[in-house]
Amino acid sequence: MADDIDQTRRPIIGAVRAALEARDAAALVAMLDPLHAADIADVLEQIGAAERAALLAIWGREIDGDILSEIDESIREEVIASLAPDVLADAVRELDSDDVVDILEDLEEPAQERILQSLEAEDRAAVEQSLAYPENTAGRLMQREVVTAPSHWTVGEAIDFLRAEEWLPDQFYHVVLVDPRMKPSGYVTLGRILSARRDVRLADLREESFRTLAATMPDSEVAYIFNQYHLISCPVVDSAGRLVGVITIDDAMSVLDEEHEEDVLRLAGVGDEASVNDGAIATARQRLPWLVVNLFTASLSAMVISQFEATISALVALAALMPIVASTGGIAGTQSLAVAVRGLATRSLTTANARRVVLRELGAGVLNGLGLSVILGAAGALIFSDPLLGVVLGLAMICNQVVAALGGVLVPLTLNRLKFDPALASGTFVTTLTDVMGFFAFLGFATLMLL
Amino acid sequence: MADDIDQTRRPIIGAVRAALEARDAAALVAMLDPLHAADIADVLEQIGAAERAALLAIWGREIDGDILSEIDESIREEVIASLAPDVLADAVRELDSDDVVDILEDLEEPAQERILQSLEAEDRAAVEQSLAYPENTAGRLMQREVVTAPSHWTVGEAIDFLRAEEWLPDQFYHVVLVDPRMKPSGYVTLGRILSARRDVRLADLREESFRTLAATMPDSEVAYIFNQYHLISCPVVDSAGRLVGVITIDDAMSVLDEEHEEDVLRLAGVGDEASVNDGAIATARQRLPWLVVNLFTASLSAMVISQFEATISALVALAALMPIVASTGGIAGTQSLAVAVRGLATRSLTTANARRVVLRELGAGVLNGLGLSVILGAAGALIFSDPLLGVVLGLAMICNQVVAALGGVLVPLTLNRLKFDPALASGTFVTTLTDVMGFFAFLGFATLMLL
Repeated sequence: MADDIDQTRRPIIGAVRAALEARDAAALVAMLDPLHAADIADVLEQIGAAERAALLAIWGREIDGDILSEIDESIREEVIASLAPDVLADAVRELDSDDVVDILEDLEEPAQERILQSLEAEDRAAVEQSLAYPENTAGRLMQREVVTAPSHWTVGEAIDFLRAEEWLPDQFYHVVLVDPRMKPSGYVTLGRILSARRDVRLADLREESFRTLAATMPDSEVAYIFNQYHLISCPVVDSAGRLVGVITIDDAMSVLDEEHEEDVLRLAGVGDEASVNDGAIATARQRLPWLVVNLFTASLSAMVISQFEATISALVALAALMPIVASTGGIAGTQSLAVAVRGLATRSLTTANARRVVLRELGAGVLNGLGLSVILGAAGALIFSDPLLGVVLGLAMICNQVVAALGGVLVPLTLNRLKFDPALASGTFVTTLTDVMGFFAFLGFATLMLL
Repeated sequence: MADDIDQTRRPIIGAVRAALEARDAAALVAMLDPLHAADIADVLEQIGAAERAALLAIWGREIDGDILSEIDESIREEVIASLAPDVLADAVRELDSDDVVDILEDLEEPAQERILQSLEAEDRAAVEQSLAYPENTAGRLMQREVVTAPSHWTVGEAIDFLRAEEWLPDQFYHVVLVDPRMKPSGYVTLGRILSARRDVRLADLREESFRTLAATMPDSEVAYIFNQYHLISCPVVDSAGRLVGVITIDDAMSVLDEEHEEDVLRLAGVGDEASVNDGAIATARQRLPWLVVNLFTASLSAMVISQFEATISALVALAALMPIVASTGGIAGTQSLAVAVRGLATRSLTTANARRVVLRELGAGVLNGLGLSVILGAAGALIFSDPLLGVVLGLAMICNQVVAALGGVLVPLTLNRLKFDPALASGTFVTTLTDVMGFFAFLGFATLMLL
């Protein structure tokens, strides 16, 4: 899957390691200089911490702002701490304000201050204004650099203005039309401006659909809106409706990527900051909380089973069979859960269709419960030459499949309703439910029918 | 999480349902007309199948190409089948070639043919050429409509050409520079063209970094490259290096979204086509295969336990305690697995750092195994007034945590090495491993130390 890319990058990491051994600074510069900033960041992430320190000591003066932006948060603080103050200052000064904010947010106060000091007064003010918005909002994501024009301008006036302008953002795709009080009224794509005659008014070229984002909007919603409406860039306004910045699609794509990461990691009960770059102790610490929670929830299963010790004593084979019912329920619960969490994340599961989806899960649980109960029941009856044991296995399987299917969708819906992230904790809750139900149904039916 | 958006959409779905009851076509048109195509598609997805059929019967003639593109694949075929031939033809004719290809790929042969017939000859040829590339490649993702210019042109010549051109793509962000044989040599952003004087040569404005994508490149790699290098659009070339189309970031973003969906669903053992829109029977069918596989893998656990029936007979409390060790191992395995699968998907886990990550997992497994074994061992010893039982619980926990942490990373790495998707089947493999190991270690130590 990752092979083509991996194969082009692996020799570089090998060569970097060799040059590090030889402390050959010239070779390192020659090797890394032609690479894209994102690829250099990958090299820094994939070598070990000791190698990274050695590389930064020899080659650290070559680091620029783009590389800093690309470096994963898990090692960025470490890299920044190792840079000479003038290298850091130069690196940060060349970045757009949104990239500076992205770097600053994760740093401790003194390091933040050091970087802010190195910016020019105007840039510092822009960054500080962004930082004044809460974390994970549009205000933190936007860049302050926006190309605007009064809507009464013609195409010719806009082109003359752009040609005369000393400073323009690296990448921009629209000109935002504003009134004298900086309230945006629409935007025009550059393609439209380029293909229109000089005397056409910008207002006549504006895109049909136009929306703005409130600076306080959560970034998850920003990502959703970009994805839903295929936006390339979108103006951000303050509470008075005045233009304060613009968000571009690459930033929205990063948020979407992070949201997915959170979903996968939270569903699995891992802290959402986990990264392959973390060390063993950090990793152990991230994972311990849910393991301890599971220790307690698993004790519930143990308590249920202990109620049936007399039954198990009478028929020890039950102890061997009971995990089959429980674990098949766990798989079914996880399946139902993954579809529901994904549906909530993409907003295709909403209050408008929740009832239908729950009924659908109930139906699927009954169907698969019946199918599995026939297979397991027949196998159990044959292997143990005991038709009643087959019936017990089958009945327990049906009960647990239905509980699993319903639990998988109801637990995340409930968490969502209570304003929690549905991916948080759902996995542990659902498997606890299917374990308890699996053991209870199987041992309960066995007690009633086999003793 | 989804609330703001959900709350604006819910009243619309309620109103649509009311208008459907009243068979009020005018109200439906008035209600849906102001909505964005993506929101109309959501309404179609979120109402039930019967309501959808009713809505399409009354309002189906209003459907346009944008709505068709936005509709989820799970219901698109059903919607297309319900449309009058002339409505379908009009809808498809207004789309760019990549959107037509996206709609066509999932349809059966006769429906495909019907749509191809309705296109003009030139568009049909473009679509057929895209369809000639294998599924899930850049060739299927690209649009054929590209704005190109000879690299010797000046800004003035480019602007004059664009102003004279009758037809331009809806959205374009670059002009691709080509030689007379249509080999691309670079591209220029529209912002650069707009801000340069008329006599500047396009070649002098070209972006520093330029890359092209082979038409046969897998789309997952296309998405990775857009994300890695922050591309907005990228030219696609055939095997002779000639320009055949362009891919824009919104298409790459959709692929990234689908890849994430596949990962989440496959990790959970659900067919990767699963959607909240599927019915109960389709849902049951998607999920049954892994449930049946689990039935067999769970039988392994049962076989392990049955080897220890004598031990359990002698000390029935063991039957109640054994799931604690197994299930905590299952959680740890899932945690390790999620981080590894995510690392492989984002290509931050590669051959360059695999060894370090495996050792990291081993370390984390040992640390958490020690921590959990102290808690569980002490609790077991106290509750059952049996220090040796505590030791057995603790030892089994350490073993299983180490196996879980290692299994969680080695199983996906192995699947990846064997060119399988690491998310496929990993969940079932890993929990089988932790169940078998959990039961074996606990009952084994118990047999050695308690009997």
